[in-house]
Amino acid sequence: MKRNVFYVSDRTGITAEMLGQSLTSQFDGMQFERHTLPFVDSLERARDAVATINRIAHEEGGRPIVFCTLVDDAIRDEVRKAEALVLDFFEVFIAPLEVELRKASSHAIGKSHGTGDLSRYTERINAINFSMAHDDGLGANGFGEAELILVGVSRSGKTPTSLYLALQFGIKAANYPLVPEDLEKQRLPDVLLPWRSKLWGLSIRPERLHQIRSERRPDSRYASLANCRHEIQAAEALMRMQGIPFLDSTNTSIEELSTTILHETTLSRHRF
Amino acid sequence: MKRNVFYVSDRTGITAEMLGQSLTSQFDGMQFERHTLPFVDSLERARDAVATINRIAHEEGGRPIVFCTLVDDAIRDEVRKAEALVLDFFEVFIAPLEVELRKASSHAIGKSHGTGDLSRYTERINAINFSMAHDDGLGANGFGEAELILVGVSRSGKTPTSLYLALQFGIKAANYPLVPEDLEKQRLPDVLLPWRSKLWGLSIRPERLHQIRSERRPDSRYASLANCRHEIQAAEALMRMQGIPFLDSTNTSIEELSTTILHETTLSRHRF
Repeated sequence: MKRNVFYVSDRTGITAEMLGQSLTSQFDGMQFERHTLPFVDSLERARDAVATINRIAHEEGGRPIVFCTLVDDAIRDEVRKAEALVLDFFEVFIAPLEVELRKASSHAIGKSHGTGDLSRYTERINAINFSMAHDDGLGANGFGEAELILVGVSRSGKTPTSLYLALQFGIKAANYPLVPEDLEKQRLPDVLLPWRSKLWGLSIRPERLHQIRSERRPDSRYASLANCRHEIQAAEALMRMQGIPFLDSTNTSIEELSTTILHETTLSRHRF
Repeated sequence: MKRNVFYVSDRTGITAEMLGQSLTSQFDGMQFERHTLPFVDSLERARDAVATINRIAHEEGGRPIVFCTLVDDAIRDEVRKAEALVLDFFEVFIAPLEVELRKASSHAIGKSHGTGDLSRYTERINAINFSMAHDDGLGANGFGEAELILVGVSRSGKTPTSLYLALQFGIKAANYPLVPEDLEKQRLPDVLLPWRSKLWGLSIRPERLHQIRSERRPDSRYASLANCRHEIQAAEALMRMQGIPFLDSTNTSIEELSTTILHETTLSRHRF
């Protein structure tokens, strides 16, 4: 049976979504229909949220599940009136923290996912702009400023991983493609030589690369399975020879790739 | 007093970090030193994590706080041995969910932030690539495919917001700059006219824009406060005349901007 899941938050709902996704993903074979109700920051909006939850419950049957991150007790009490299982994560965890820290919490809405400390937020935006400006071999004269330079064949996942590193962790990540010429010569592009210690590789399985490239350029030599095999083999040989650590992106998400790289380097992840 | 905070996870640690950040941000004036221990997916690694936590506790004093998202009971029990306040999200919330859903959870590690459903993951990566390829006015012939096109003056926050929309919510978001020529004529660039319903504006306070632009081109006319004032006034007038809704990015994070836009449009946010 399908269950409706609501993420209710006084701010963006991103934390509630992430928590609820982690939890519901533990129930295989269940079908969840997900709704996010962000900016529930007044009693009136809490009442609207309850009305929405109850309406969907009545229309579709099955008691909804509500994950909320509501800082204000009165708003939370209002949301609790929904005909649903309501799990609020502030309610559960704030009390033990207050005891531990011997301090009352501020109960202030909007502390996370805001611009908060402006200089830290600016740093993060600068990292995003840096990664954009140093994508796919662009801006090589800025590599001195990069904290990390991803290398790999075309479509091995460098761009989304660089952007994720910038967005989520505030890392200035550039990326540079290994093109057939580099692979043939089995040497790194000259422009990368001064930055060898910042290099990290991505590889991918040939079948998956073939599939990804075929979406962009169907029936091309570029996308052919034989060429994908050849490029990947040569790229991995080159990275091994040069002592560049690399990861396989085939079944590994950008979150997992980014976390693994940060974990194995001395780069520190910022948290926003 | 400073407290050490640990995020311990059997996978990336991203959920633990987000939850822990939300909670600790409720305690003003406290100083937290944060550490992430990802990939704690075996008893041995759990023991290593405990050793790390205890070592830092002994070196620095003050009982650490450990936020964990550990699916496996045995691994969690091991981490509980740390001389710390251990708060585990799965432990607290899985039980009421099992009762509600009348179903045991799978206790399987790595369900969130993985590649999971490949077609959904591919959609997300495609959204990221789309936003990259349609940044700052690029690829206007692809605007038909865009779900959203952000407009605004240079450095009003369009690029990071588009990327966040793609990365976090899987939205194909393009962005297009309003340049002085458009502002003078008080008309939209021709290339945007067919897509008026997809347009969403960003604005910013002149003082902040002046500051951001000055970092890039100090002492230029482009960055001058007078010019920033003039551009913003003209851009807001144009957006009002054209009926384009817009948000102020000055004190609003990319999370908040993205969530607000999705909330006020009919675009549905995907959750990864």
